[in-house]
Amino acid sequence: MKLTTAQIAEFEERGYLFLPSVFAAEEMALLNGEVPGLLAADRPEVIREKDGSTPRSAFHVQVWNEIYAALARHPRLLEPGAQLLGSDQLYMHQFKINAKAAFDGAVWQWHQDYATWHADDDMPECKAMNIALFLAEANEFNGPLMFIPGSHKAGRIGAKHDVTTTSYPLWTCDNDTIARLVEQGGIVAPKGPPGSLLMFHGCLVHASGSNLSPWSRWIVYLSINRCDNAIRRFQRPAWIAGRDFAPIEKLPDDCLLRLARSRRQAAE
Amino acid sequence: MKLTTAQIAEFEERGYLFLPSVFAAEEMALLNGEVPGLLAADRPEVIREKDGSTPRSAFHVQVWNEIYAALARHPRLLEPGAQLLGSDQLYMHQFKINAKAAFDGAVWQWHQDYATWHADDDMPECKAMNIALFLAEANEFNGPLMFIPGSHKAGRIGAKHDVTTTSYPLWTCDNDTIARLVEQGGIVAPKGPPGSLLMFHGCLVHASGSNLSPWSRWIVYLSINRCDNAIRRFQRPAWIAGRDFAPIEKLPDDCLLRLARSRRQAAE
Repeated sequence: MKLTTAQIAEFEERGYLFLPSVFAAEEMALLNGEVPGLLAADRPEVIREKDGSTPRSAFHVQVWNEIYAALARHPRLLEPGAQLLGSDQLYMHQFKINAKAAFDGAVWQWHQDYATWHADDDMPECKAMNIALFLAEANEFNGPLMFIPGSHKAGRIGAKHDVTTTSYPLWTCDNDTIARLVEQGGIVAPKGPPGSLLMFHGCLVHASGSNLSPWSRWIVYLSINRCDNAIRRFQRPAWIAGRDFAPIEKLPDDCLLRLARSRRQAAE
Repeated sequence: MKLTTAQIAEFEERGYLFLPSVFAAEEMALLNGEVPGLLAADRPEVIREKDGSTPRSAFHVQVWNEIYAALARHPRLLEPGAQLLGSDQLYMHQFKINAKAAFDGAVWQWHQDYATWHADDDMPECKAMNIALFLAEANEFNGPLMFIPGSHKAGRIGAKHDVTTTSYPLWTCDNDTIARLVEQGGIVAPKGPPGSLLMFHGCLVHASGSNLSPWSRWIVYLSINRCDNAIRRFQRPAWIAGRDFAPIEKLPDDCLLRLARSRRQAAE
């Protein structure tokens, strides 16, 4: 999968690129089938909401689940990532499933991921980005990602460490800055079916609201970084800020379908 | 202002009716000009979010502000209300401005207003309804009202007293019920400019999400009740559950414009 010049230009201008329905139903069924078990796991990598029970995020899943291990090396994610980051020497800085659970999924305040990567992990430059794969449909009611288009051009902006709003500490942007950026760029919330990809710049300001709907809004996030931009501070656990700086080796395009097939055969 | 037979049928079928841009810009400017002062007032009728500072609701404003006193008797609100409730003998059960403040406005969980009116105020029947007037634009990002169309037909459904999620106690619906009702009716979130009206049945299940946007989503709510359906328990303050059961006397249609004019003249 190759992005066109126009798609790359759009990413550079707006800070994100939305590609609906990149993965097929069979691939999504395989990925989604794992999620309840992953979110229910009693492990430190599974963060819960403030209520102490609702799953918020499952981190580092590519290390403890074989299906997500394959996804983390998938060419449909890594090839566009390499084009947008200008290097095919990429490693996984963070890999997680955000649950945004039905009824109880809480907000993510306005932030740039690079603010945290810089402040907590000493990542030298904003040469990292996110690739979000929708496991579930994202619609207007289940707390879709909200972007301020063009806000990545502001570079890294001042941030304060929010350790109270949610259960997960985050370097967030102040209201005056958000108001100013929204005045310029507005807000968008790309929506689409499972299997859609949302690629966005490490400096793009984003947030997501609460989810009061009966529909969980599961998303897998790959935060990929250039190997020549590896982090230099190791205060966060390796399951939050990766320390394996070797380039990811891509698998074939049908890696998930092969896994699905071998599972079917094993079940027969 | 008279609703058509088709509009009344739509209300009965779906439980709500949306009428965009019913009030003119001059009327909205007059109403909106009051809001910052009202929300900043240091009075018990102004409820704040859990943070203790962000305004959540200003109650009973029609009693302590002359502009809203006129709005509470406005024929463009009361005439459709009389048609939908089948009586022109109506009184004000509750009157408030909900702020849903920019950045900090918190959720309202799924609920039926009548569940609270019944449990707390002993309102005999669901012969009361809400009329919401949008003071600000309601858009997809500032926590618009969400309805489950047709859910009013379920009548009063089981509710639990939620005194923890937000700063305002509410009888809310359980998740299984919401999931079942949404399966049948879906979710809608009517959006529109300031001056729009949203009329909805006292048993319609509704909610609204958090507001992370820089746009406050101010709404005035009139909860009108038939005089022959007056409440019989007085445990909540009169500024939350009204005790003046005399029929509201309507003002002329230009009552707000006259107030605007007299203010302009006084300023000259």
